[in-house]
Amino acid sequence: AIGGSASRAENLACSAVGERSCPHPLTDVEANQVLGEHERMVRARFAAIVPVLQRIAREQRAEGFVEAARRIAQAELGIEPPTELLERAWLGGLDMRALYGQVVLKTVTQLANEIHQVQAAGSGATEPEATSFLLDCGYHAVDISPCSDGRLKGLVRYVLRLPEAAIRWRRAYAGALFDVEASVQRWMEAELQRYREHHPVPPDAGTRFLKIAVYHWSSSDPAHQGCAAHGSNQRRAAAAALDRLRELRQAVENRFCCGASVDLLLIGVDTDTDAIKVHVPDGRGELSLHRAIDNLELYRQTLDVDADEARMAVYRAIEESCSRQGWGAAEGPPHDGMRRLVATLLINNLSQIEYVCRTWGGRYPDIGHDERFISVGDGFEEFQLRNLAYFAHLQTLEEGADDMDVGIRIFEKLHASEGRPIVVAVHFRYDSRVPGSRERTILRCKRVRSAIRSRYAHLEQRGLLVCGMTVQDTKERSPIEAVEPTDFPVLGQDGDVR
Amino acid sequence: AIGGSASRAENLACSAVGERSCPHPLTDVEANQVLGEHERMVRARFAAIVPVLQRIAREQRAEGFVEAARRIAQAELGIEPPTELLERAWLGGLDMRALYGQVVLKTVTQLANEIHQVQAAGSGATEPEATSFLLDCGYHAVDISPCSDGRLKGLVRYVLRLPEAAIRWRRAYAGALFDVEASVQRWMEAELQRYREHHPVPPDAGTRFLKIAVYHWSSSDPAHQGCAAHGSNQRRAAAAALDRLRELRQAVENRFCCGASVDLLLIGVDTDTDAIKVHVPDGRGELSLHRAIDNLELYRQTLDVDADEARMAVYRAIEESCSRQGWGAAEGPPHDGMRRLVATLLINNLSQIEYVCRTWGGRYPDIGHDERFISVGDGFEEFQLRNLAYFAHLQTLEEGADDMDVGIRIFEKLHASEGRPIVVAVHFRYDSRVPGSRERTILRCKRVRSAIRSRYAHLEQRGLLVCGMTVQDTKERSPIEAVEPTDFPVLGQDGDVR
Ligand SMILES: [Zn+2]
Ligand SMILES: [Zn+2]
Ligand SMILES: [Zn+2]
Ligand SMILES: [Zn+2]
Repeated sequence: AIGGSASRAENLACSAVGERSCPHPLTDVEANQVLGEHERMVRARFAAIVPVLQRIAREQRAEGFVEAARRIAQAELGIEPPTELLERAWLGGLDMRALYGQVVLKTVTQLANEIHQVQAAGSGATEPEATSFLLDCGYHAVDISPCSDGRLKGLVRYVLRLPEAAIRWRRAYAGALFDVEASVQRWMEAELQRYREHHPVPPDAGTRFLKIAVYHWSSSDPAHQGCAAHGSNQRRAAAAALDRLRELRQAVENRFCCGASVDLLLIGVDTDTDAIKVHVPDGRGELSLHRAIDNLELYRQTLDVDADEARMAVYRAIEESCSRQGWGAAEGPPHDGMRRLVATLLINNLSQIEYVCRTWGGRYPDIGHDERFISVGDGFEEFQLRNLAYFAHLQTLEEGADDMDVGIRIFEKLHASEGRPIVVAVHFRYDSRVPGSRERTILRCKRVRSAIRSRYAHLEQRGLLVCGMTVQDTKERSPIEAVEPTDFPVLGQDGDVR
Repeated sequence: AIGGSASRAENLACSAVGERSCPHPLTDVEANQVLGEHERMVRARFAAIVPVLQRIAREQRAEGFVEAARRIAQAELGIEPPTELLERAWLGGLDMRALYGQVVLKTVTQLANEIHQVQAAGSGATEPEATSFLLDCGYHAVDISPCSDGRLKGLVRYVLRLPEAAIRWRRAYAGALFDVEASVQRWMEAELQRYREHHPVPPDAGTRFLKIAVYHWSSSDPAHQGCAAHGSNQRRAAAAALDRLRELRQAVENRFCCGASVDLLLIGVDTDTDAIKVHVPDGRGELSLHRAIDNLELYRQTLDVDADEARMAVYRAIEESCSRQGWGAAEGPPHDGMRRLVATLLINNLSQIEYVCRTWGGRYPDIGHDERFISVGDGFEEFQLRNLAYFAHLQTLEEGADDMDVGIRIFEKLHASEGRPIVVAVHFRYDSRVPGSRERTILRCKRVRSAIRSRYAHLEQRGLLVCGMTVQDTKERSPIEAVEPTDFPVLGQDGDVR
């Protein structure tokens, strides 16, 4: 699942314009360094798992094995290994598949809690700061739905460089085909808060609700490494996401009176370079597949100018996109706030293009799928990193089966075919202010896990599916709590009514 | 499933007080007549199905069978029979189970559309009228959750005699164990409408949101014919419903600020007599299992007085219930609106007690389960009739499996054990104002149907499960549209990923 080494030689972003132009004048060098350290740290933790387990496996016949294995796992992986599995090794040999799965799941939990500590120690915009940037752009709430694809997992933190607290909802669906009804619910929630609590601003402040959909493609291998949910067809992926956005707007406008509406934004990501394409709304808020700014092009055009001129070029590109004629012609430019938002996204993304340029020579070595686990449910806010996890947002497998199937297909090729189990982390958040919410959320975990094990029984039976469960309070930086599985089947396979 | 004939001799409601006292002075004689005609009509339509199908079965070898069968079905049942089934009869014989299932489903659809016509022709309170009664009581929205039990299916129209348009949400769950999170969503929807649209009244009107839970028991056979979800234990059923109500109030109060809350009401129904027990809230809105008014007692006590005095007695009972000491002692009487609502419910229910008294000698002959079909999903507003359908409100079988299991267990005893298939009518409503809503709702129908066929495969395989699908626009009196099944399995039984 790694891009060919031949294509790696050519730097997609800046090789064409000569020697000295890199780094780009608008690069946030400090942020790139912090993000780079974070990425290296997390990747190293996951990369260590297989070699360490191989070492443990070699020692399973030795005396004092359990203690030795624990020491190794603690020292090398920073986790407490599942002792029961180790203790059972003398009987039928060490169950490496189960051990691998448990260790991946424990690494996820452990890392998330470490990330909380880093966050608590400072850095990162606070919620009021983050909210005020978006309020400046005229938005009181932002709901973003990327594709479930793991290569978009770093979207908010890396690709768009938005303060994480600013995005109120992040819900991934295969092919970015988000649930319209669920988005309407979130719109209602945000509206109600404006009216009842005047939070973040009262309803007469003239702010809007913004829904962003994010599709993706692969510039180096467009026919194979694009969006699996749309047969790697970039145009189809973009068109489907745009249709969904329009449906949402129609739904809100038709169901609610008094001028209810939402602002829409469509963004594409080239998962080889992390360069974005922004479909700029026109004066009426309308989008077009034909009216978009290609940020890789903008990057190349502005490599040799100074920072001020580069910034001007970004604004000029926005103006220009709205004065083109023919296909994708706009009815006037977008409102000021949207223009500011689009400019910020483009400028932020220039730093990310530079990041990929510096770290990977302009193109990721893993242009294809290389996710470590499937994240199911509410997803971990803690992991905003490319190709780390495939994320299927769902409340029930019954409704989310399509999204999950796409993920399982990817992981069958990536892991199961190599004998590694597919690791699924079922994670839901509860609201500790609501009585019974934690218990009901734990039940939901068990229900979804049971449905997954039953739907993918062909993997489960061969030990190729390891499914863990965790819950977490909705309060920011709450600890992740493991849920112990009670292995009763919930969805009947044998036809019994339970 | 019919009560013993010995017990039928004694009239529970009024036999004790002598000869002349019946009818009760507060009886709405005209309403009882209209309701009686409606009940007889609907029951007759379902009762005709088996004899007519037996007649058709006898003719299946005769020449011109298909035409003859169609004529009989049209004349006797008022429906167009499924012709394909009839035409296949010459081959392997008539598939009576499938035919029975299809005919029950067609009767449901046909009757619902006939009921629309009657409604359109007049009678029944309009929505503004209905809303204004509740607004007079201080409520801008009412959400009622009875048990799924079919014997409560006539709750709103017969037992409580509330204008149907007044109840904004009717969602049945096994054991009245309603979904707290879904109720919070509905509370939010009602709030938002008050704020944005000032409908039905603006937020400063001082009105409230009312959640009613309804449990039940059987006075003649309390240990067997009570609530199946609570092992026929009346106290447990009441306590569980009360816990859920309190959880909902806590959820709203803790999740939302600015004094957000809901009013609660707990009602019990004796499914043998339709007499209710109302748990009267006190001055703080608190409920108690020990503080309730038994309306059957009130009926007996007021049989011999005049209408004014009977009405006074109802109000006195409410006062009294709130001035008792010891267990269930109240902190003052409920607010005026709640008092008016409780009085109205008690008075309305006196007519229903009288109705059962007149029609059935004070106790239904079918004190046990005698439902004709299982209604799954959003339920049919059209059928508000006791023991007609078991109603499981659900969005996915994954979440609603417990409610469905209770229903299937009841129907296995009632129908499958007699060789009759269990008829399941999957019904969801869509919003034609929302683009794609109809298509997504049809998909939901198919998803739920597929999950049901897979969970109850032991019945399906023996032809003992017939599952139809219909959708309907949310607009009042919209026609019911049949959805043709595409028989692909959705939940994998064979482990294939689709
Ligand atoms: Zn470069
Ligand atoms: Zn994708
Ligand atoms: Zn009587
Ligand atoms: Zn019940």
